[in-house]
Amino acid sequence: MKIVVDAMGGDYAPENVIAGSIDALKEFQVAIALAGPQDHLAAELKKYSYPPHMVEVIHAPEVVAMHDPAVSAIRQKRNSSITVGLEFLKKGGYDAFISAGNTGAVVAASTIVLGMIPGVDRPGIGCVIPSLKGFNLMIDMGANMAAKPEHLLQYAKMAKVYVQEVIGRANPKVGLLNIGEEECKGTDFVKEAHKLLEEKEPAFIGNLEANEIYMGKADCIVCDGYAGNVALKVSEGLMEAVAILMKREISKNPVAIFAALLLKTTLSDARKAADYSEYGGAPLLGVNGLVIIGHGRSSPKAIKNAIRVAKREVEHNVLAKIKGVL
Amino acid sequence: MKIVVDAMGGDYAPENVIAGSIDALKEFQVAIALAGPQDHLAAELKKYSYPPHMVEVIHAPEVVAMHDPAVSAIRQKRNSSITVGLEFLKKGGYDAFISAGNTGAVVAASTIVLGMIPGVDRPGIGCVIPSLKGFNLMIDMGANMAAKPEHLLQYAKMAKVYVQEVIGRANPKVGLLNIGEEECKGTDFVKEAHKLLEEKEPAFIGNLEANEIYMGKADCIVCDGYAGNVALKVSEGLMEAVAILMKREISKNPVAIFAALLLKTTLSDARKAADYSEYGGAPLLGVNGLVIIGHGRSSPKAIKNAIRVAKREVEHNVLAKIKGVL
Repeated sequence: MKIVVDAMGGDYAPENVIAGSIDALKEFQVAIALAGPQDHLAAELKKYSYPPHMVEVIHAPEVVAMHDPAVSAIRQKRNSSITVGLEFLKKGGYDAFISAGNTGAVVAASTIVLGMIPGVDRPGIGCVIPSLKGFNLMIDMGANMAAKPEHLLQYAKMAKVYVQEVIGRANPKVGLLNIGEEECKGTDFVKEAHKLLEEKEPAFIGNLEANEIYMGKADCIVCDGYAGNVALKVSEGLMEAVAILMKREISKNPVAIFAALLLKTTLSDARKAADYSEYGGAPLLGVNGLVIIGHGRSSPKAIKNAIRVAKREVEHNVLAKIKGVL
Repeated sequence: MKIVVDAMGGDYAPENVIAGSIDALKEFQVAIALAGPQDHLAAELKKYSYPPHMVEVIHAPEVVAMHDPAVSAIRQKRNSSITVGLEFLKKGGYDAFISAGNTGAVVAASTIVLGMIPGVDRPGIGCVIPSLKGFNLMIDMGANMAAKPEHLLQYAKMAKVYVQEVIGRANPKVGLLNIGEEECKGTDFVKEAHKLLEEKEPAFIGNLEANEIYMGKADCIVCDGYAGNVALKVSEGLMEAVAILMKREISKNPVAIFAALLLKTTLSDARKAADYSEYGGAPLLGVNGLVIIGHGRSSPKAIKNAIRVAKREVEHNVLAKIKGVL
């Protein structure tokens, strides 16, 4: 198995990406192909010792910056680590592609280079979120800004396979993110999606209010990319605000530091709930290849976790199984 | 000043509503008009002592249940505490209306009974949210499921008045909830709203990502009702999940109870961030009258706080000032 990793993706690239990749190849025995400017990567790789046959460098001289406009970046930088990395995945001999770089660019390039799975109209970013009953998959987290009801049905089918194979839960249930439990609630788009899911998705259990996301009522939660992105980022921001409030409290009352230490595990569990890098990146579902998107602020551990997830996706033959249900 | 209170609104009505109203009239010296079935309210009121001239009972024999479909409930129950209460507000001699009942029904009845302020097309529910820099107003939280860019511009104008007068902050800034800071991001709807706000709203500071909501970058945050509702309810659910994780931790490790006690204030501050009842209810802006929507699970304290907010709205002449900017 060989995983292509965008060595230039993320706020701390290539340092964190290479550190996490080296850890992963030792821990999981997967070969890594790092895409990026050859000289830059070679210099960084000198810091590590590793079995040389386990690391390949794919030369890609250009770098898409985190805030480059996605589509134009892909058009103008045809030799970026993102595009070149995906081209290697496509040509064969490589099993998955991971990037913690510019999300929009990864989505656009994956769609262009790999194409879509027949039966899927738009890719969706799935986010593995912890709930009180274990991990669930929420999709889409921001790839699709013009979602149609049929896209949500396609997301539901793909999410079920993902939850079964990668998260490892049998008979996953599908919920639709909405503002109320009743089917009459929501925008016209959500009401139509509800109707379609009810007709065509046997695992559909109905609407899910946003306060139920972390309760684990549904294993797969489908929504449009705008709402999904809002849900994910609000959670991230709220836990950040809680952490800041905590620090303020400690500076006012030093005794509180003991409290904070005692509860560290709980709170960090909760923060992880809001940070998909901790789980190991978000699968981009619907494109014709295994692509995982990491958080821009990925630590070496997050990169390592993303590679672990990629390995599991490959071993469980997720791509073929998704194609089988569409 | 006399505030109309829907005595039958909320999961714990009329008990909590009446308890909170009695507290409020004593603390804030406002007269209260309770709308609901006369006999039921009279029996409940017997539990309390209060100056009789401060409490009026408005007989409304019907009750809209929390999960009744909004519009049909309003059409079928013309003598509900919601509709009758709003009719009293409209006829004059009353200053504001408060309900912790069925939100959709309150929005629909307010629109039908009070009508819209000239220049506003759709009502919006504002939510006062605490941030690291003080309270802000986010609008719409779920009244408008077919938002257009011009509705968001109208919300921005109303929100500025509210933040100035009720929250008490001069020169409020307006942000647009979106999935990225760049103006090219988001759905077509959000991109159009961005353009319109940039052209017509001098206090507009651009897009705000959902993780920045609690950071206090903008004083007024505008969004469509679906996204706003998701943002609010995700926050509520996440803090609930944290509280549950905390209890689990305590049951595993009794020492953690001391930690939890030490940090109680901080965490309850953070939970309040996600619960608008703590602030005192959400203003329904755009209808031609002062309406405040409380959380369905309102405690007596939440009802009291809603009355406090209503009093402030009346004293600051918020309705006339909003009309003045539209």
